Amino acid sequence: MKPLIVRIDEIMEGLKQVDPIQAIEEGFIAYSDGKVNVPDPGELLFEDPPGQAHIKYGAIKGDDYYVVKIASGFPGNTALGLSRIQGIMLLYNQNTGEPEAFLLDNGYLTTIRTAAAGAVCAKYLAPKKVSRIGVFGVGIQGQIQTKFLAGVVDCRDLIVWYREEDPLDEYLETAEAAGFTVTPTCDPGEIADSCNLIVTCTPSHKPLLQADQVRPGTHITALGSDTPEKIELDSQILADADVVVADSLLQSRTRGEISQATRAGKITEEKVVELGNVIAGKSPGRTSDDQLSVADLTGVAVQDIQITKAVFKALQQGGLDA
Amino acid sequence: MKPLIVRIDEIMEGLKQVDPIQAIEEGFIAYSDGKVNVPDPGELLFEDPPGQAHIKYGAIKGDDYYVVKIASGFPGNTALGLSRIQGIMLLYNQNTGEPEAFLLDNGYLTTIRTAAAGAVCAKYLAPKKVSRIGVFGVGIQGQIQTKFLAGVVDCRDLIVWYREEDPLDEYLETAEAAGFTVTPTCDPGEIADSCNLIVTCTPSHKPLLQADQVRPGTHITALGSDTPEKIELDSQILADADVVVADSLLQSRTRGEISQATRAGKITEEKVVELGNVIAGKSPGRTSDDQLSVADLTGVAVQDIQITKAVFKALQQGGLDA
Repeated sequence: MKPLIVRIDEIMEGLKQVDPIQAIEEGFIAYSDGKVNVPDPGELLFEDPPGQAHIKYGAIKGDDYYVVKIASGFPGNTALGLSRIQGIMLLYNQNTGEPEAFLLDNGYLTTIRTAAAGAVCAKYLAPKKVSRIGVFGVGIQGQIQTKFLAGVVDCRDLIVWYREEDPLDEYLETAEAAGFTVTPTCDPGEIADSCNLIVTCTPSHKPLLQADQVRPGTHITALGSDTPEKIELDSQILADADVVVADSLLQSRTRGEISQATRAGKITEEKVVELGNVIAGKSPGRTSDDQLSVADLTGVAVQDIQITKAVFKALQQGGLDA
Repeated sequence: MKPLIVRIDEIMEGLKQVDPIQAIEEGFIAYSDGKVNVPDPGELLFEDPPGQAHIKYGAIKGDDYYVVKIASGFPGNTALGLSRIQGIMLLYNQNTGEPEAFLLDNGYLTTIRTAAAGAVCAKYLAPKKVSRIGVFGVGIQGQIQTKFLAGVVDCRDLIVWYREEDPLDEYLETAEAAGFTVTPTCDPGEIADSCNLIVTCTPSHKPLLQADQVRPGTHITALGSDTPEKIELDSQILADADVVVADSLLQSRTRGEISQATRAGKITEEKVVELGNVIAGKSPGRTSDDQLSVADLTGVAVQDIQITKAVFKALQQGGLDA
């Protein structure tokens, strides 16, 4: 019976049959091609207890499905023994409006599609030979990021930045399981000095990396900043960069590193190319190993569409049905 | 396990334990009191095949829950043997963001909450003695409307307007089961001549009732017009009316009969009072049986919140659990 209700363990099973990087690449290409309708997200804010809910939705024109994502964050949940993040993906039939599947993923598919986008950036923008990978942040995104980077980069030498109070065990376990030799550090300079592929995965509200630390020939993917306020990179880095890539030019006007750099007068929008066009070869990405490139990911609904569709199709092929 | 998935037969069972009129009245009072946060609905439009999806959501401040409604209309579904309307109500915990229950109602709860709002208007705005009830439209809303009117009005004499091509059987069956003696007519004038309580339940795009047909001492509830284009009443009727009531002053700026009359220069917003304030006694409604009153319902998300909560609570008390 429709819709199919898919719990987290089934989602995990389905993901094993999915190539998220391919799904996300195709999504970005469609997006940059103007084939995706992504209206402004909806938002509900709550005061007591504080919390917020976001409703994101969109459709690829002529596709079989459309997706609505409802996600919320309630900081007080931790004290109640509940997950701070709640989330669900609703997959609808674009030809009939019927609900096909509700994926109760608790935000996990968002983590996956974001990690996959990080890997796509590394695949298309990192220098040919990656000497060392630097990751900022030891949270869930930093962890999953290592799994995805292992699929697109040969280098297995990784250095991770953490704050002294952050627990490291889970990170080390995950990154080592992905095949990496891991060095933890609390010094961003140590990462900038030794890495030519850097991924930032923090909710920081002040720059973690300064322009004078970053060396030519480095690629940086900034994953963490998805609001007008958050920032992980000194905006001068974007000014110095030879290539600046956005997942969504439209969203970059109001959120993320590019919006920060634009508002600070460090760059203009003309400098920025869109990831889907870089993947499709329509816009130049990195053209030499000496260049400094920055990719800024704010998260686009087409990623939700692509990952949700991919998992649903995998489950269908696996014989799971309503 | 959360969320509780509630199918249509369980929704029907739950509704038996619910007083929708009370739930909707309380919702309108909270809404007019400024206690409800209802952001603009989201929309996705599809071209091939044509269809549209609407995402409505809102929360009563300090309430236990919030609700997201996803509804779609795909005209081509009828030819496929599928329901043209698809709909679901998602009930979330306002304190934790957890999804509590997904009610797969296929739009039925929207029909119920709209019918309940029609009954609320009759209860507060009809003249003391209703001589005859006139209904425009023999569709599902016209049918359910009779069930709800029977709960708030003593009169059991009903005349219904239909188009020659409309099937009548289902309407007659439902209205007679609700206790009414029913006369069908294709002549709007016959309704205006004999009724002092009129409810319009059509998707009309031109006025069905003219100002010179309507007699003083009549109350009209216009249920059908919920877009900028739809219209059931000659705007002069609103100009002639002693009392004009909106479910939402804000929404009436852009949709429904009041927006039509305002755009036509027939009335100004100052003439309009809000239903929740009439219920609460804060704004005057009908003050004499000679007055002409008009209520224009465009449908407010607080109605979705109230009916969904009420059904969920009834099911919880009935012992249905995840």
